[in-house]
Amino acid sequence: MFSRTTEYALRAMALLAYAPDQLTPTPELAERTKVPPNYLAKVLQQLASAGLIVGRRGVGGGYRLTRRAADINLMEIVRSVGELDRIKQCPLGLANHGPNLCPLHKKMDEAAARVIDLFKDTSLSDLVSAPGANKPLCDDVTTARLSISGRGTTIGP
Amino acid sequence: MFSRTTEYALRAMALLAYAPDQLTPTPELAERTKVPPNYLAKVLQQLASAGLIVGRRGVGGGYRLTRRAADINLMEIVRSVGELDRIKQCPLGLANHGPNLCPLHKKMDEAAARVIDLFKDTSLSDLVSAPGANKPLCDDVTTARLSISGRGTTIGP
Repeated sequence: MFSRTTEYALRAMALLAYAPDQLTPTPELAERTKVPPNYLAKVLQQLASAGLIVGRRGVGGGYRLTRRAADINLMEIVRSVGELDRIKQCPLGLANHGPNLCPLHKKMDEAAARVIDLFKDTSLSDLVSAPGANKPLCDDVTTARLSISGRGTTIGP
Repeated sequence: MFSRTTEYALRAMALLAYAPDQLTPTPELAERTKVPPNYLAKVLQQLASAGLIVGRRGVGGGYRLTRRAADINLMEIVRSVGELDRIKQCPLGLANHGPNLCPLHKKMDEAAARVIDLFKDTSLSDLVSAPGANKPLCDDVTTARLSISGRGTTIGP
């Protein structure tokens, strides 16, 4: 249902949420999210344009979140890559429909609304700090290194 | 949220539901659904492969539904063009996740489940026979020609 870009954006944001206080280098982001570097670069640009992350080039550069993971909801991430809008006008451009959607587009809009409601109610920290053995993007080794700090879940040395 | 292919498949099926007893010529389908003919041809092939429609080539040819519109739900249509599956395995292929999804993919799966529930409960006839002024794909002129028959809503002469 979601585009590859959306999936990748969510992965990148989840990974950055593990290290809120430091810049994560893009090669590490690409490796851990399993996203092709060139594709990831475009996704990161979109997230940066939306003000969700900030980057620095050069040695020691990388990306970090601009806000606490608890203050970023999934809907903001999904919207930043252009997915998941409500339907406000007849997609066929029928003059007699306009903003009064027909039953087909009402139903499609209702589907979008259901997903938007779910994603608005879920923060990035809900994902990375949820109890349970499976942490987003983490294999066994990485999970063992996870520690819960006051500011969120971070990956220890 | 939905791909263009999904939108076009739903439009084509809605149009065919207005004329359940006759073949609708593909040029008419393309014009009324406002879908580029080549693109529509591919969508129609997918719908036919899924057994939702049947076609005949040549003079007097076209497409029609294989079942009553009341017996086709939106989920069948969306699935026929390859969209909207539940997430059954870790998309990153992490061995320690496998079918036990992490909170990120659980949430994305929950979103898919919400939409699937909605679309499973909606039949094609729910869309074209719903009361109200706005009929899917119909401008003012076409709406005025609509008549409700025992087998569904059809477009009269």
